[in-house]
Amino acid sequence: MQKEQIQILETSIIRLLRRGANKQLLNIIKKTHMADLSIVFENLTPPNQEKLFKLLDNPDDIGLLFSHLSEKTFVEFVKIVDFDKLVTVFDHMASDDAAELLGCLDEELSDKILSKMKKEESYNVEQIMSYEEDTAGSLMVKDYVALEEDVKAREVIEALQNKYLDVEMPFYIYVIDNYGKLVGVSSLRQLVLESPDKPLKSFMATDIVSVKPYTDRDVVARLVSRYDFLAIPVVDDDNRIIGIVTVDDVIDILHETATEDMLKMAGVGEDYVETQSLLKGTRIRLPWLFASCLGGIANFFIIGRFESTLAQLTGLAAFIPIIMGMGGNIGTQSATIVVRGIATGRVNIRDFVKIISRELGVGFILGVTYGGLIAAVAKFSFMAEPFSWALSVVVGGSILSSMTVAAFVGTAVPLIFHRLNIDPAVATGPFVTTTMDLISVYCYFTITRLLLGF
Amino acid sequence: MQKEQIQILETSIIRLLRRGANKQLLNIIKKTHMADLSIVFENLTPPNQEKLFKLLDNPDDIGLLFSHLSEKTFVEFVKIVDFDKLVTVFDHMASDDAAELLGCLDEELSDKILSKMKKEESYNVEQIMSYEEDTAGSLMVKDYVALEEDVKAREVIEALQNKYLDVEMPFYIYVIDNYGKLVGVSSLRQLVLESPDKPLKSFMATDIVSVKPYTDRDVVARLVSRYDFLAIPVVDDDNRIIGIVTVDDVIDILHETATEDMLKMAGVGEDYVETQSLLKGTRIRLPWLFASCLGGIANFFIIGRFESTLAQLTGLAAFIPIIMGMGGNIGTQSATIVVRGIATGRVNIRDFVKIISRELGVGFILGVTYGGLIAAVAKFSFMAEPFSWALSVVVGGSILSSMTVAAFVGTAVPLIFHRLNIDPAVATGPFVTTTMDLISVYCYFTITRLLLGF
Repeated sequence: MQKEQIQILETSIIRLLRRGANKQLLNIIKKTHMADLSIVFENLTPPNQEKLFKLLDNPDDIGLLFSHLSEKTFVEFVKIVDFDKLVTVFDHMASDDAAELLGCLDEELSDKILSKMKKEESYNVEQIMSYEEDTAGSLMVKDYVALEEDVKAREVIEALQNKYLDVEMPFYIYVIDNYGKLVGVSSLRQLVLESPDKPLKSFMATDIVSVKPYTDRDVVARLVSRYDFLAIPVVDDDNRIIGIVTVDDVIDILHETATEDMLKMAGVGEDYVETQSLLKGTRIRLPWLFASCLGGIANFFIIGRFESTLAQLTGLAAFIPIIMGMGGNIGTQSATIVVRGIATGRVNIRDFVKIISRELGVGFILGVTYGGLIAAVAKFSFMAEPFSWALSVVVGGSILSSMTVAAFVGTAVPLIFHRLNIDPAVATGPFVTTTMDLISVYCYFTITRLLLGF
Repeated sequence: MQKEQIQILETSIIRLLRRGANKQLLNIIKKTHMADLSIVFENLTPPNQEKLFKLLDNPDDIGLLFSHLSEKTFVEFVKIVDFDKLVTVFDHMASDDAAELLGCLDEELSDKILSKMKKEESYNVEQIMSYEEDTAGSLMVKDYVALEEDVKAREVIEALQNKYLDVEMPFYIYVIDNYGKLVGVSSLRQLVLESPDKPLKSFMATDIVSVKPYTDRDVVARLVSRYDFLAIPVVDDDNRIIGIVTVDDVIDILHETATEDMLKMAGVGEDYVETQSLLKGTRIRLPWLFASCLGGIANFFIIGRFESTLAQLTGLAAFIPIIMGMGGNIGTQSATIVVRGIATGRVNIRDFVKIISRELGVGFILGVTYGGLIAAVAKFSFMAEPFSWALSVVVGGSILSSMTVAAFVGTAVPLIFHRLNIDPAVATGPFVTTTMDLISVYCYFTITRLLLGF
C-alpha cells in the first residue's frame, strides 16, 4: 500500500471503530496485510488500539502485527494484552521475531512468558536470545528443513507436506549426515525437477556457504547479497546446522546498518529514533556535540595565542570561516567515501597506501584550485595594501594546506579505525570535522606569522 | 568466502596461470562461485585475465562473472572477447543483467550484439532497456511463471519441469485470466501442499501487490521489504504481468540508494566511485565544494562589514570557529535524521509541524546547554575586562540562536525539498552547512553590535 492508501485505511478504521461496526472491521482486517495494519495501529488512540486488537484472533496475525510495531508502541500495548493470549501468540511466532520482541520486554514479564510457552518453542527462543545482539545467532530462525542424505526426492516432498508444515519458506533443503553435520543443500526448485526416487545425495550441491552463530550480522548480509541467497545456514563449531538467516532479515540488516552509519557519521549516535521523546532525543545528541564544543574551545585558545597577529590586521579574521569550511567539507567528503567504501567492501585495507595517495592527490588538486580562487579574492580585497601579494599567498597557501591535510586525515582516520576494529563511521562524525577545524586554523595563523611577520 | 580466502584464491590462481596448469585451474573454477572469481579477476593483469577467461566455457558462468565485474573492468575486457562467444553469453543471461551490461557498452557494439541474439531474448532485453533507469521496468526479469486459473496443481508442477525449466527461482506462480490479467498468486511451497487435482484458482491468494514498469525503484524496494516478498510482479496499465523484480535486485537497490544518499549528504555526488581515476574523482568533487567556497567568500564579506567591531575587540574573532562549529554540527544532525527518516519512511511529511517543533525544541535545549557552557568560558577568559558579562551574554546568545536556527534549517530544508520532489539528500550536503555558517556569523556580529555597542 502507498502512503495515501494507508491514510484512507486509517480513516475508515477510525470511523468504523466509532460506529462499532465489527463486521466491516473484520472484513478489512482479513484483507489487510499486518505490515499495513501496524502503521494504522501506531496512530490509533490507546482505547481504539484495544478495540481493534480484540477483533484479531489469529495468533499468527497478532505475531506479525507485533513484530511490525515500533518498540515503544509494542512495550506499551503489551501491558494490557491478556496473558494467555500473549503466550499463544509467542508460541506461534517465528523464533527470531519472538526472541527480538521478548528482548524488548522487562525480564520478569519475558521470563514469565517463556515459562508458559511450549517447551520446544521456548527452548528455541531462549537459544536465540542467548547469542549476542547483531550476530547470526540472534537473527536466525529455527524453522528449516534438514534431512539425511539417503532421503529420496519423493520422501522429501512428503516430509514437507507433513513434518515441515510449519516451515514457512523452505527454499532450501539442507542435507545432513548421520552425525547431523551439514554436507549438502538442495532447493525446492530442484526437488520438483528430479525424478522421485533419487536420493538427496545424488543431486545436492556440496559447496555450502555457512556462518557461525557468532558471525557478525554485517558479514551475514554481505554473503547473502554477494551470492544472491534466499537464506544462509548457521552451523555450530562441529558443522551441525542450528538455524538459518533468511533474506528478509538481511534486508532489515541492510536498512539498519545504513541508518546507523549515517547517524554515526552525523554524530547523532546509532540509536537515535525519530519518534523518541524530546528529552531522550536531546540526551542522545548532547554528548556528540561535546567533541565539537571542546574543539571549538581549543580553537578559541589557539586564536587567542595569535591575538597580536590579529591586532595588526583585523581583516585576517574574515578568512577564518572559508579556511575552516573548505577543510571541513573536503575532509567529510573523503571520510564518507572511505567509510561507505569499507561498509560495501569496495575499499580494501590492503590498498591503504594507494587510497591515501589518491585522496592526497585529489586534496592537492582541489586545494590548488580553490586556494588560487580565494587567493585572488584576497589580493583583490586588499589591493590598496602593500602586503596584498603576501596576504594572498598566505590565504591561498592556508587553503591548500588545509584541504590537503583534510583529505589525508579524512581518509586515514577511518582506515586506521577500521584496522583497529573500531567502527570507522564514528570517526567521520564530529571528530574528523573538529580535528580539521583545529588544524586549519592553526596552519592559517602559523603561515601568516611566517610570511607576513605579524 | 571471506577476504582472506579470496586472497589465497588469488595467489593460487596467479601461480597456476604462470605454470599454465590448466587442469588445476579448471578444478578451481568449478568449485568457485563467480561472485568470488570476479574479485580475483578484477585484480589480474590483462594477459592473465585473458588466459583465465579462455578456461571458462559455460555461458551461464561467464554471464555471472560479467555481471559481478565493475563497469570499468567489464567495458575494458569485453573488447577482446570473441564476438560469437559474447552473443551466446548474452543469450543465456537473465534479461535484467543483460540489459544493464549492454547499457554500459557503446551503442554500436550493444546494437550489434542485440541484432545477433535470439529473437525472444533480445526482445526481452530491449523492452527492459526501454524503461528509464531506476524504474521497476529497468530492473525486472522476464523469467517468471504465469499460468491460467484452471491449471491444476499437478499440471503446474509438470509445467515447471518442462516449459519453465529456465526460470531460476519460481517462488511464486502468478495466475492470469483469459485476458492475461493478473488475478492471483500462489507459491511453490503451497503447490507442494495442495492435492494434485485442485485448480490454481481454488487456492491462489488474490490480494496481490504489484508495481508498474515506471514505478520508482525506491518504492519497489520499500514494498518488498515491508511485506517480506521474494519477488514483486510488474504489470502494465491493463494489469497484465510483464515481469518480476526479485529480492536480490532489491538488496542491490538498498545498497545503492544508501550509498548514494551518504555521498550526496557529504557533497560528493552520487556517482562517485572509489576506483575512479584521480582526475575523474577530482572533477566529480570539485563543483560540490563550490557551494562551500561561495559561502566562505560571502562570510568573508560579512565579517569585513564588521571590521570596526572586530578592531575594538580582536578577541571576538576567537569565538568564530566555535559558533560556526556548533551550528554546523547540530544542523547536520537534524538534516541527517530527517533525510534518513524520509528514506526509510519513518518521517512523514504529514507531521511537518510536529517534526519541526520537536527539532526546534532539541535545538533550543542543546543551545541553552552549550551556550551556557561557552558563555562561562568567555566570562572566565575576559574576566579583567569591564564588558566581560556582556561578552558572555553575546557569546552564549549567539550559540543559542545559531543552534536553534540550525536545528530548524536542518529539519525544514530537507522536508521542503522532499515536498517539492527534490532529493532531500542533496539539501543536507554543503548547502545546509554553508547556509548555517553564514547565518551563525551574521547573528554573532549583529548581537555583538547590539549588546556591546562596538
